[in-house]
Amino acid sequence: MAGNSFGRAFVVTSAGESHGPGNVVIIDGCPPGLAISAEEIALELARRRPGQSGLVSPRDEPDRPEFLAGVYEGRTTGTSIAILVRNVDVRTRDYAAIIDKYRPGHADYSYDAKYGTRDPTGGGRASARETVARVAAGAVAKKLIRESFGAQIVGYVKQVGAVVAEVPEPARVTEAEVERFADGTANPVRCPDEAAARRMIALIEAVRADRDSIGGVAELVATGVPAGLGEPVFDKLTADLGKALFSIPAVVGVEYGSGFLAATMRGSEHNDVFVSGSPIATETNRHGGMLGGISTGMPLILRAAVKPTSSIAREQRTVTTDGAPTTIATKGRHDPCLLPRFVPVAEAMVALVLADHWLRWRGQVGRR
Amino acid sequence: MAGNSFGRAFVVTSAGESHGPGNVVIIDGCPPGLAISAEEIALELARRRPGQSGLVSPRDEPDRPEFLAGVYEGRTTGTSIAILVRNVDVRTRDYAAIIDKYRPGHADYSYDAKYGTRDPTGGGRASARETVARVAAGAVAKKLIRESFGAQIVGYVKQVGAVVAEVPEPARVTEAEVERFADGTANPVRCPDEAAARRMIALIEAVRADRDSIGGVAELVATGVPAGLGEPVFDKLTADLGKALFSIPAVVGVEYGSGFLAATMRGSEHNDVFVSGSPIATETNRHGGMLGGISTGMPLILRAAVKPTSSIAREQRTVTTDGAPTTIATKGRHDPCLLPRFVPVAEAMVALVLADHWLRWRGQVGRR
Amino acid sequence: MAGNSFGRAFVVTSAGESHGPGNVVIIDGCPPGLAISAEEIALELARRRPGQSGLVSPRDEPDRPEFLAGVYEGRTTGTSIAILVRNVDVRTRDYAAIIDKYRPGHADYSYDAKYGTRDPTGGGRASARETVARVAAGAVAKKLIRESFGAQIVGYVKQVGAVVAEVPEPARVTEAEVERFADGTANPVRCPDEAAARRMIALIEAVRADRDSIGGVAELVATGVPAGLGEPVFDKLTADLGKALFSIPAVVGVEYGSGFLAATMRGSEHNDVFVSGSPIATETNRHGGMLGGISTGMPLILRAAVKPTSSIAREQRTVTTDGAPTTIATKGRHDPCLLPRFVPVAEAMVALVLADHWLRWRGQVGRR
Amino acid sequence: MAGNSFGRAFVVTSAGESHGPGNVVIIDGCPPGLAISAEEIALELARRRPGQSGLVSPRDEPDRPEFLAGVYEGRTTGTSIAILVRNVDVRTRDYAAIIDKYRPGHADYSYDAKYGTRDPTGGGRASARETVARVAAGAVAKKLIRESFGAQIVGYVKQVGAVVAEVPEPARVTEAEVERFADGTANPVRCPDEAAARRMIALIEAVRADRDSIGGVAELVATGVPAGLGEPVFDKLTADLGKALFSIPAVVGVEYGSGFLAATMRGSEHNDVFVSGSPIATETNRHGGMLGGISTGMPLILRAAVKPTSSIAREQRTVTTDGAPTTIATKGRHDPCLLPRFVPVAEAMVALVLADHWLRWRGQVGRR
Repeated sequence: MAGNSFGRAFVVTSAGESHGPGNVVIIDGCPPGLAISAEEIALELARRRPGQSGLVSPRDEPDRPEFLAGVYEGRTTGTSIAILVRNVDVRTRDYAAIIDKYRPGHADYSYDAKYGTRDPTGGGRASARETVARVAAGAVAKKLIRESFGAQIVGYVKQVGAVVAEVPEPARVTEAEVERFADGTANPVRCPDEAAARRMIALIEAVRADRDSIGGVAELVATGVPAGLGEPVFDKLTADLGKALFSIPAVVGVEYGSGFLAATMRGSEHNDVFVSGSPIATETNRHGGMLGGISTGMPLILRAAVKPTSSIAREQRTVTTDGAPTTIATKGRHDPCLLPRFVPVAEAMVALVLADHWLRWRGQVGRR
Repeated sequence: MAGNSFGRAFVVTSAGESHGPGNVVIIDGCPPGLAISAEEIALELARRRPGQSGLVSPRDEPDRPEFLAGVYEGRTTGTSIAILVRNVDVRTRDYAAIIDKYRPGHADYSYDAKYGTRDPTGGGRASARETVARVAAGAVAKKLIRESFGAQIVGYVKQVGAVVAEVPEPARVTEAEVERFADGTANPVRCPDEAAARRMIALIEAVRADRDSIGGVAELVATGVPAGLGEPVFDKLTADLGKALFSIPAVVGVEYGSGFLAATMRGSEHNDVFVSGSPIATETNRHGGMLGGISTGMPLILRAAVKPTSSIAREQRTVTTDGAPTTIATKGRHDPCLLPRFVPVAEAMVALVLADHWLRWRGQVGRR
Repeated sequence: MAGNSFGRAFVVTSAGESHGPGNVVIIDGCPPGLAISAEEIALELARRRPGQSGLVSPRDEPDRPEFLAGVYEGRTTGTSIAILVRNVDVRTRDYAAIIDKYRPGHADYSYDAKYGTRDPTGGGRASARETVARVAAGAVAKKLIRESFGAQIVGYVKQVGAVVAEVPEPARVTEAEVERFADGTANPVRCPDEAAARRMIALIEAVRADRDSIGGVAELVATGVPAGLGEPVFDKLTADLGKALFSIPAVVGVEYGSGFLAATMRGSEHNDVFVSGSPIATETNRHGGMLGGISTGMPLILRAAVKPTSSIAREQRTVTTDGAPTTIATKGRHDPCLLPRFVPVAEAMVALVLADHWLRWRGQVGRR
Repeated sequence: MAGNSFGRAFVVTSAGESHGPGNVVIIDGCPPGLAISAEEIALELARRRPGQSGLVSPRDEPDRPEFLAGVYEGRTTGTSIAILVRNVDVRTRDYAAIIDKYRPGHADYSYDAKYGTRDPTGGGRASARETVARVAAGAVAKKLIRESFGAQIVGYVKQVGAVVAEVPEPARVTEAEVERFADGTANPVRCPDEAAARRMIALIEAVRADRDSIGGVAELVATGVPAGLGEPVFDKLTADLGKALFSIPAVVGVEYGSGFLAATMRGSEHNDVFVSGSPIATETNRHGGMLGGISTGMPLILRAAVKPTSSIAREQRTVTTDGAPTTIATKGRHDPCLLPRFVPVAEAMVALVLADHWLRWRGQVGRR
């Protein structure tokens, strides 16, 4: 019942399937007067679109956004904003052979169990195609929080398989470093540690050649976030960020600050001491920028674990929709590793949470 | 703005501080006709209450719940339920010395930054005392899902510091095994691997003697959950469970199924194959019972990383509320390790999510 | 902040302006398996569209709905549904002369006061053009409640100016009687009392010739609604229906059952006595089908008062956006009386409320 | 499902029955720093309490509010506020004789139809006793909007039966005029037209002597409300106020500004012209302070029609819960006319809506 909206003050509602006419998103609650253009949306969509490099799905989607409502003469009016991105490169024939089989690792079975029916073409609503709506809305949220309080969100690939990047100062990584190597060429794996990036690329190519897939971890950093965002108890900033990231397809783990490593630490080594300054800060940032679920003014640092792509070209055992044993080998156009295209989607979700909590804070407490 | 409610169909709203008159929770949307008694609530509260063993805070709270509304002659009426738990053992003097200092790892600073004011006694709303409301509401949710579809939720301590329990079959662990050792004596650390439990107890006692604290990991297992719970896109069952666990004080990481380990896996080794049966199941359960964010009928398996208690008796550097350098040593009655008392709170949150999604599913799809 | 959604279980979110690219609506929470076609939507849209008779605005909008998502092979999938209706006959030049004047009775001034900006073309979001989204979503809701429990919603014009129709048995009026006269010709004023309808038509034509407008009252009747819909306290069925109708542009009063007449009645003459039967019913229906805010199984009867169209061709005094005195005469294409086209919009809103409360009831209480 | 909350930014959730332990309300989202005392709550509760005059129910409830949470040293902290009002004068024996009969005009039957069960003592959740929670929360809202922007809400009885008060300037009526006659004695009927008030009192006394009840109309006026409150489309200020008033027990009609009279008016006589000034205003106020659903800065003027009390001492026909014909005469302690005690409840609901929309506006648009 009604799970296609996100946020309470900056509210995003989406609809759309992989092989339907398109994806549409309505943003409700965006402040008036924000300058935003279809080009700005398109730039973010280009970062998540398939076909952008040899490492990702070859599906060829131009992903041209159209504002249907809410923007007048280049600025938001304060009323609801709608953005439509039509699907173009739809090849339903790719799926005909597997329509009556439950793909391992996919939502085919759980959707059937839930609804008793399902759009089987390209995964329908369960396809990662829906993330186009998240990125479109996230582009508006990013602009809003940048203009409102100078926040920047940078995501990057921290790990692919066993290859782990060295990123000594997460809060200093720039989007430029993530998108391009030092020589200016595109960094298709979006990892700012170039040596690790080269190894990740090699690994992904090997995995693909092996008709397999591989998992990984992305790290998200938000700087310029003022202290005081997040709500007590249930709507902690940590909780809403956790939900935001877990809502992205294929995410199986989320942590912030010290994360799971904190399990092995003592309070005396984990606590970050407060130090004088304006504003007050902490000497270290093991708390990932949030205490009691509320931002402290330190950079927010989160990580999300992403499972290996479920669709692989190898033959796997499974059952038909009638429950009979069979085998399957997925032929569609899939990413051998989800991480490179996951980065802009995760950034978008972080932006949506920050925009939402910024407006919530301003509503309750006001500008001081 | 308004972060003290949780759920959409089974909606829980709470209020209360550590040292105020008490904590109250309103449950809205509970089906009518559910048999529930104050004794059942009290049993769950007893599992989270301080003073239950030498490993936890010595604060002495009887935690006697009073139904204020919504139950008539021992059964829910369908209207809103209210449960009040008064605070009894309030020692505000413990906090007088630290009222103008920001405790490292605590929410004192972020609350001040947010609201410009704060109830400093015992942490106010940011105290873990608020979890009494979660557990009271969770007791109702547990009863509902057990009666409705036979679900059982069992949580236990998986790790304390470097001590990791062996739990080969999570779905077979019983609450009895968690609460008591084989000889029938209470297991104060709630770890079903007795050898590990003994080492955890020793570790926690050593840490406390050292005026320090230690982190850990809890594992949560829900069995008997039907396939089909969870919503597409934003309100995935994974996302709402993630939010539920991240909303508990001190949680810094959440994962389900293979979790962060999935980062190093290939699709061919991670995918769980579907096998014939009624209902259809998977041969393995690396997906932790959820695909596409929707339950598959396999056991739900989640883990939460809990940081070491921030309050420690050791002297730490910090600043005053005016920003001047100072030191602090917290004197209150604190748990050297949060994990033992975390278990019933985490179970309650899982129960709230399952009750909510069960009603959401029934509303949209109906009973077939 | 975020006022463009309606409902809790059957949730409708809309976006769109009078002179923008179009209007879009997302329906979230609709049960799966409902057969619905663009043609069914188009039929309802045709009832509200301008240009359908000489009594209404001559704006020529074909209002062809496009399903963007949520429907697969003619049936809802359970995921979010999106419907797009493009604007075609946009004549922005009609408004250029008045862009810097506050039209009396319009929302120009209040929008400027709220947002500090506004889309002035055709009234932007404040135009009744947005009701196209309500009617599109309402068509889905009507189908759902008809298929689920046989509910029928019939609206008609009860009063225009001083002309009041005689409708002795509201629950027996059919849509056919509302849409057509006894001779089969179209009834452009949607009043089932033909004699009154003829007088209303003459009145509306006289008013238009006089470059003026006129108010009226519509009556809404829902039959086949089971007892038990509506929630205690705040979300009474009466309250949600009241909100639904008050949210339609130009509504200034709402009543149900005896309505304002109840102010002059005694309890002994107002109370409807219960009588035996299966199900139990009331002998009379002064309560309009709802007691304690919950449906009783008797027909729901509501009335909405609609003010005269604010846009009139006569010269009126007003001020410019800078506050200087001026005069204005609105030239656009307006309805001299809003009532005929109000009927399908009001029916749609009633349908949305009933669909929502039906799913809410089913979620909490289940099918017995 | 979950109808016991109201508001989106200033969110009120209540629980409680007529004859249960008490009523409790949680307010979530109230700004921090608001000075509020139990005495201020008690003052408003005293205006709605039974037993305050010979015209109302003799039930003797002291209605002493207790803050359970959210207020520290006399000021709100920004976290959730809880207020408990215990029931004291509970005489369940009054109801024993009618427990198996459906009282005409009451919610007994519709609750049974909804839930299959019900708390029959004193009407349970369907009793007007629940309005104690509304008034307690409304007292906080009133204080908030008075402190934030100087708003005042004054309600009074406009009509009882056929007795209609003359109130030429609604926006000038003060609470003092409503509560007391010119000679300083209490005005038990809360009508500021003293001559009409005397006739109303006589009428109510006559009706009670006749073991009957009588309906009426209340008028609500809010002054000092800034232009710009209310949301486009569904959450219009008119719509949320309409819902707020329709949610109060016994309300059967709501109108604002010209209301139902607008049905007979022409646009040229109904439109209020804008006039120069700072801020811009309208010359007349037929629009009741709201255009396009958004406040204009003019006083808000609403009216609510309230049906005659359903409980009357006369014998009426009805059926038993098994459907067998019977008769009933209600013996409880009821108001012969609901209007005098309705006034503070309606004021509270208007205050809740204004507080909510004020915070919503501030969140989205910010303070300019």
